[in-house]
Amino acid sequence: MKELRIGLVGYGFMGRTHSNAFLQAPRFFDLPFKPVLKAVCARNAERAKAFAANWGYESIETDWRKLIERKDVDLIDIASTNDTHHDIAIAAAKAGKMVMCEKPLGRNAAEAREMVAAVEAAGVPNSVWYNYRRVPAVVLLKRLLDDGKFGRIFHYRAKFLQDWTISEDLPQGGEGLWRLDVKVAGSGVTGDLLAHCIDTALWLNGSITEVSAMTETFIKERKHNLTGKVEPVGIDDASAFLCRFGNGSLATFESTRYARGHKALYTLEINGEHASAFWDLHDLHRFQFFDHKDEGRVRGWRSVHVTDGDQPYMKQWWVPGLQIGYEHTFIHQFADFVQALGDGKTVGPTFRDGLATDHVTDAVLKSAASRKWESVPS
Amino acid sequence: MKELRIGLVGYGFMGRTHSNAFLQAPRFFDLPFKPVLKAVCARNAERAKAFAANWGYESIETDWRKLIERKDVDLIDIASTNDTHHDIAIAAAKAGKMVMCEKPLGRNAAEAREMVAAVEAAGVPNSVWYNYRRVPAVVLLKRLLDDGKFGRIFHYRAKFLQDWTISEDLPQGGEGLWRLDVKVAGSGVTGDLLAHCIDTALWLNGSITEVSAMTETFIKERKHNLTGKVEPVGIDDASAFLCRFGNGSLATFESTRYARGHKALYTLEINGEHASAFWDLHDLHRFQFFDHKDEGRVRGWRSVHVTDGDQPYMKQWWVPGLQIGYEHTFIHQFADFVQALGDGKTVGPTFRDGLATDHVTDAVLKSAASRKWESVPS
Amino acid sequence: MKELRIGLVGYGFMGRTHSNAFLQAPRFFDLPFKPVLKAVCARNAERAKAFAANWGYESIETDWRKLIERKDVDLIDIASTNDTHHDIAIAAAKAGKMVMCEKPLGRNAAEAREMVAAVEAAGVPNSVWYNYRRVPAVVLLKRLLDDGKFGRIFHYRAKFLQDWTISEDLPQGGEGLWRLDVKVAGSGVTGDLLAHCIDTALWLNGSITEVSAMTETFIKERKHNLTGKVEPVGIDDASAFLCRFGNGSLATFESTRYARGHKALYTLEINGEHASAFWDLHDLHRFQFFDHKDEGRVRGWRSVHVTDGDQPYMKQWWVPGLQIGYEHTFIHQFADFVQALGDGKTVGPTFRDGLATDHVTDAVLKSAASRKWESVPS
Amino acid sequence: MKELRIGLVGYGFMGRTHSNAFLQAPRFFDLPFKPVLKAVCARNAERAKAFAANWGYESIETDWRKLIERKDVDLIDIASTNDTHHDIAIAAAKAGKMVMCEKPLGRNAAEAREMVAAVEAAGVPNSVWYNYRRVPAVVLLKRLLDDGKFGRIFHYRAKFLQDWTISEDLPQGGEGLWRLDVKVAGSGVTGDLLAHCIDTALWLNGSITEVSAMTETFIKERKHNLTGKVEPVGIDDASAFLCRFGNGSLATFESTRYARGHKALYTLEINGEHASAFWDLHDLHRFQFFDHKDEGRVRGWRSVHVTDGDQPYMKQWWVPGLQIGYEHTFIHQFADFVQALGDGKTVGPTFRDGLATDHVTDAVLKSAASRKWESVPS
Repeated sequence: MKELRIGLVGYGFMGRTHSNAFLQAPRFFDLPFKPVLKAVCARNAERAKAFAANWGYESIETDWRKLIERKDVDLIDIASTNDTHHDIAIAAAKAGKMVMCEKPLGRNAAEAREMVAAVEAAGVPNSVWYNYRRVPAVVLLKRLLDDGKFGRIFHYRAKFLQDWTISEDLPQGGEGLWRLDVKVAGSGVTGDLLAHCIDTALWLNGSITEVSAMTETFIKERKHNLTGKVEPVGIDDASAFLCRFGNGSLATFESTRYARGHKALYTLEINGEHASAFWDLHDLHRFQFFDHKDEGRVRGWRSVHVTDGDQPYMKQWWVPGLQIGYEHTFIHQFADFVQALGDGKTVGPTFRDGLATDHVTDAVLKSAASRKWESVPS
Repeated sequence: MKELRIGLVGYGFMGRTHSNAFLQAPRFFDLPFKPVLKAVCARNAERAKAFAANWGYESIETDWRKLIERKDVDLIDIASTNDTHHDIAIAAAKAGKMVMCEKPLGRNAAEAREMVAAVEAAGVPNSVWYNYRRVPAVVLLKRLLDDGKFGRIFHYRAKFLQDWTISEDLPQGGEGLWRLDVKVAGSGVTGDLLAHCIDTALWLNGSITEVSAMTETFIKERKHNLTGKVEPVGIDDASAFLCRFGNGSLATFESTRYARGHKALYTLEINGEHASAFWDLHDLHRFQFFDHKDEGRVRGWRSVHVTDGDQPYMKQWWVPGLQIGYEHTFIHQFADFVQALGDGKTVGPTFRDGLATDHVTDAVLKSAASRKWESVPS
Repeated sequence: MKELRIGLVGYGFMGRTHSNAFLQAPRFFDLPFKPVLKAVCARNAERAKAFAANWGYESIETDWRKLIERKDVDLIDIASTNDTHHDIAIAAAKAGKMVMCEKPLGRNAAEAREMVAAVEAAGVPNSVWYNYRRVPAVVLLKRLLDDGKFGRIFHYRAKFLQDWTISEDLPQGGEGLWRLDVKVAGSGVTGDLLAHCIDTALWLNGSITEVSAMTETFIKERKHNLTGKVEPVGIDDASAFLCRFGNGSLATFESTRYARGHKALYTLEINGEHASAFWDLHDLHRFQFFDHKDEGRVRGWRSVHVTDGDQPYMKQWWVPGLQIGYEHTFIHQFADFVQALGDGKTVGPTFRDGLATDHVTDAVLKSAASRKWESVPS
Repeated sequence: MKELRIGLVGYGFMGRTHSNAFLQAPRFFDLPFKPVLKAVCARNAERAKAFAANWGYESIETDWRKLIERKDVDLIDIASTNDTHHDIAIAAAKAGKMVMCEKPLGRNAAEAREMVAAVEAAGVPNSVWYNYRRVPAVVLLKRLLDDGKFGRIFHYRAKFLQDWTISEDLPQGGEGLWRLDVKVAGSGVTGDLLAHCIDTALWLNGSITEVSAMTETFIKERKHNLTGKVEPVGIDDASAFLCRFGNGSLATFESTRYARGHKALYTLEINGEHASAFWDLHDLHRFQFFDHKDEGRVRGWRSVHVTDGDQPYMKQWWVPGLQIGYEHTFIHQFADFVQALGDGKTVGPTFRDGLATDHVTDAVLKSAASRKWESVPS
């Protein structure tokens, strides 16, 4: 079997989830290429070596430009901080490599637009790791929507609630905390959490035409880990918006890191003429479904435990009733990407899909500043 | 409209739920008789007067025999302690009064058998307040069973869990605590809690043929409130049994007052060939229903919020989505009783139904003592 | 005991809930006045008589002006359509009657302002039936907030979702459907559903300073029941807004009658520095509470079943584990109102509280039209 | 790092979960030995080769005796049908190999006793794959019990409900269906499902002293896949028992494959003097916990989402809020086994633990036949 030789940039949380996907996908899915973990790249050679040893990468690099130059690498996977996505992706595309990139694609739509241009000019397969599109319950929802089970859509709502930055003592910047550093992250919860909600929404419910948003930074100053100084916080701690979709439906979106008691509560709900559905990342294999056709007196929301073989991806895993985990969403995305490669097809979310989300997050931040409704470029 | 003149014995917790039912039923249901709260009877005249004033009883009695002798009373309602049911009910029947009696009917089947004989000999309408048969969700379950939606029944399970007697410092006997005094109550959780589970089960799933049971008294001695002495505890604190129903299904039943964290957790579940259902008193207007005919990929347990007009009793109350409470089960039972009176019909649970439950609780206690399977008289 | 003689205007759904409250409150609460159901007023004499017979009103009127003139009435309770609130309340106040009024107070803040002026000029006790302030779980939340258990508040979110107007075939206007007639109702879901969410929010979380809103009318034309013609629909079918509270917290609010599968899903959540809470009208006696002080490894959201005697109002009802219903919120409000009367105190929600909500709903509708952030008058 | 060379027997469902554990454990846990997948053994060479290719086994065998003879194998892992456990385990032990064996250990206690004798005589590390001991939520419960958070235990209850054999058309025997063939499986749900419940219970709550059981075979005859004939069904389709534990607590256990709507609903609950807990395999990372010390008015069951770094095993996985799956329980068990190897310690469940469960399942089947309480050998 032909090999798909992977070079990974970054060894943090996302470096782990991606590496796990590269290793697990071929054991559970029938893939047309054999993934080979060729090299991992990180500035700190010691850590890169340890990571390589743990995950089975054959070699390391300490400069991503070197990694891209390597002839024995087919695919560059970007799992490093947001401020690095743009340059690495464009260089990789120019070198003719396939590119997979952690979300958000760019720190803003301007960066993302150039990244899209690069991969499309180079004609290389590309993907953004909006992994929640590969939760079996979410895929089931997509299929039901595509099958017309919902009819006209009236409402969409999504939120992503966390609580890990409430303490004033939490510093910003540096390892593990770069998401609080606006220069590195690009934005706060808007690009980190809302971006997930938006990507799923665009996939499920089509384009967003205009938004009215508000953002807030609750803790105004934090010590910066790299400079050691107390500095203004540049990110948004919370971000919410109203919007209208192209299909005429209305929506509310919200994300925050100040919702005490919630760790990663990404929820979404869609209300259509004939059906409604609800999903919650904290209980990610339950799919709540209401079908208006159900008989009156026993009409109710169904709690669908998505673990059966006739439900998306589940035939590849265990037996009915037995759940999979969070990391499986990455395995699914990688498996789909590789299968599409074999078929000569494209599978989303592509860089172009990532740009669409960045257009929305840009509009959200713009609206929060302008205090007006802002339209979303299509 | 003809009056239905009621004489109540007892003014405790059940005296309140029954009185509320007498007052509320005619406001929400179209009844053929007008309930009149004629008299309440209790040994303590002061308390009887206060109770009468609060609930609108026209008069009081301090001797239940006097109450039964009154010509202006049509129905004797027994809400006093278990040890009084037998004598009052039989005397009332002999006097030609209709009789409603709190559950359990007798302290044992021997008492209950005589009570049944008395009302049947007198030909008077009679009812036992097994109120959970009138929870809308439970009635809905009954209708689905009668409609054949479940097919062959394989399993039934019920439990009733409380935690209010865990403390060793809780005394036994006397007001509010007579349920711990075996002479007054007849038994512990078997007659108090399991009896509810059994009555519903007999109604829904038919007769029980044999049982294997165990009981336990965790706290062996308690101070008795009336004698002031530490005395052995005669009741069962916990009671569980396996059984077989006449329809071939298997069941487990359990009740206890030592299940920390549960106040009145009566749950029941039934598994049939084509469908299953689950109900829980702590969430009494939800009905969990699984229908095997539902389409595969969106197959799931439905959470049916029983508040719609096409669901049992609910047309009489508010609007969809708005719940009723615990006390409404008594209102429903009284309304059904009065409507059946008007129609010249009988509506369960009758005294004969109450006897059937006492047969099972007797068999449970006998099996716990004999450590053998015991058959249930039919 | 001194009587509190009540004259009710309107016999619809709210006429029933109010009447039930008048009858039930004195049986469960120790009140300083004895409520007397003196008269019910409705244009249709037959229906008024039937209603009076059912609920025990001593007499009827067919003109509310007559009702107000009666010397034997102390309190005018307004349960008629929104377009009648203003005139009746003002006339009642001028006649020196106490006034209780269904929500929303006015069809808009202009009406409400005059109503407040009237009752305050007359110095008569007054109340608006924002009954959800009297759900035991919501009161518990209020007490915890007042006790400082939450610390700084970051987020509030509320929604009220229904699905009863999705069909295009549903007519507008006339009996049972006046809520779809903008002239009668004043607005659609904004005044009907969002108003509830707003009242509770103002009570729990303080004033709202500014809003950005959107509204939508999904079905543009409906047959009008009174004219028989197809006419434009003037109400808002859905309404959502972002806002900021005076305490610096951010919020999202949403209401709709197009959320398939939801009958009366009023939910609210509040996230504070030290604690969070969630409540849901479909499960109205559960209170979800997260306390950051709970020990780490067993940290979790508590599902508090609000049925114990140490929880608001519950000592008056049954025993732990046994629920009350929707209508009890009206009983509680009336009991509180009467107890405050006896104490010479004022208890909210007063007309002034009702005006505060109308200020917010006005700002919501204004913002939806202007497409700008609008400030809320204080 | 020293290698731990593994030889696997069987390539079915459990062969997959074990192989996945061997591969994943070293990537997420710091292990003192490096697992090497040396060989997989199965009678069908083609299938063995395919399995080896997929999972990375270096070689195959078609006779398990050959596998045991190999010098390059340190550990024999038995994932084949129940009827093979006894002979393979004893031969492996005699050859000085470590042995891991799928549950149940033997088809009965007689087989299991000989297996224990063999591994203990040989002094080889051994383990039975009762994987549910490694669910983080269940481990958390064990720690809380060990820390005395529950006080005296009053009640334990467990059930394991499935629905996959309801159809009369399902054949028995042969690949994928050997669990219905009593000669191969040893028993039906008693050894398959109840055994899981019993193992966890013995671990959490100590020894079981006596049982009273009932079993049922609902479908009496099925076509046998291997003989092609309709033959009597020898397994138990459902099995339930009452029991008493050595610590004085009472319990109910139930398992069935005829509970429509349930796929793998293993639930357990424990009620102690100070606390109660509940767990459910369908929502395996929630731990429901009630602590009697919680403040009265906000007392409630906590829903603990076991995904935080301070909860068992979770530091090795993702970040708070993000779940793991079913297969991780096997990874945890293997990681614990290897770490114990490095420490020269023993970690349960050992073969001796497996025997203890077989003693209980034997007593259950004996009691179901004798219709008496049967004591459990200690």
